[in-house]
Amino acid sequence: MTVSTPPALAFSADNCTVGRTMAILGERWTVVVLREVFNGIRRFDDIQRHAGIPRQVLSNRLASLVEQDVLRREPYRPESGGRVRHEYRPTPKGFDLYAVLVAVAEWGDRYLADPEGPPVEFVHRDCGERVHPRIECEAGHVVADPRDVVGRPGPGVKPFGS
Amino acid sequence: MTVSTPPALAFSADNCTVGRTMAILGERWTVVVLREVFNGIRRFDDIQRHAGIPRQVLSNRLASLVEQDVLRREPYRPESGGRVRHEYRPTPKGFDLYAVLVAVAEWGDRYLADPEGPPVEFVHRDCGERVHPRIECEAGHVVADPRDVVGRPGPGVKPFGS
Repeated sequence: MTVSTPPALAFSADNCTVGRTMAILGERWTVVVLREVFNGIRRFDDIQRHAGIPRQVLSNRLASLVEQDVLRREPYRPESGGRVRHEYRPTPKGFDLYAVLVAVAEWGDRYLADPEGPPVEFVHRDCGERVHPRIECEAGHVVADPRDVVGRPGPGVKPFGS
Repeated sequence: MTVSTPPALAFSADNCTVGRTMAILGERWTVVVLREVFNGIRRFDDIQRHAGIPRQVLSNRLASLVEQDVLRREPYRPESGGRVRHEYRPTPKGFDLYAVLVAVAEWGDRYLADPEGPPVEFVHRDCGERVHPRIECEAGHVVADPRDVVGRPGPGVKPFGS
């Protein structure tokens, strides 16, 4: 069996936005930090002990996510008094990552859950029904089979090897 | 300003399927390999030179993705003759990751593209219109605002600290 040269091989991967996104997300702890923050766990010590992230790693990831404008720091004064501390909240750019988290959770729930089932269910606040990621085109078609999605050169395409 | 204890802090993150998924994906190169394979670039040497992945890293990532049943190895005989080689194709479990890739690409296109725009556009094969990730609930509501998605304990929930 032989196959012809893949068309995508003609185009550069240098400016691939999947690669650039994963340079931000592409490390387990970064997404785990986002999971905590989206779940309302927003303080350093809470995130640290709940997710079991080493302190220095968490400190680095939070600083990076703030620098990337994915999270923002919000001051608060602890119930116990003492100096002002900060909690971390998603920016609008951060909220836009929710679709990624939902897609990751859906796949994980399907293939990697314990026998009892997933630990968390994501539901629509208004009606309580579970949510799922869908792929839809601008003509309004729901695309059920990923093989019905094809990539074509976009406005920023560059030839490979240039 | 003070805030009460986040409800999610009561539940364990040990069996979180987001964390487990990112233990597979949570490394830039793994998703880049999937991008190549989904784009039809399926042979070791093609992936290696197109994505610029170090050979040993690529070899490890492919082995891991095959072991996780995300990719499968398919034999082929090179056009130039010689011994049988293998290309890598998504399994059904791998195809199910496409929603994650589309969500990652959408976010990257919005926030990390070059000024000219993204290098690739993903379109619906049937109609040629661009595709986008959507979040929809089982009652059929499209959820536009991520703040309308809430997590609730699922069947596999475990208390935190147990």
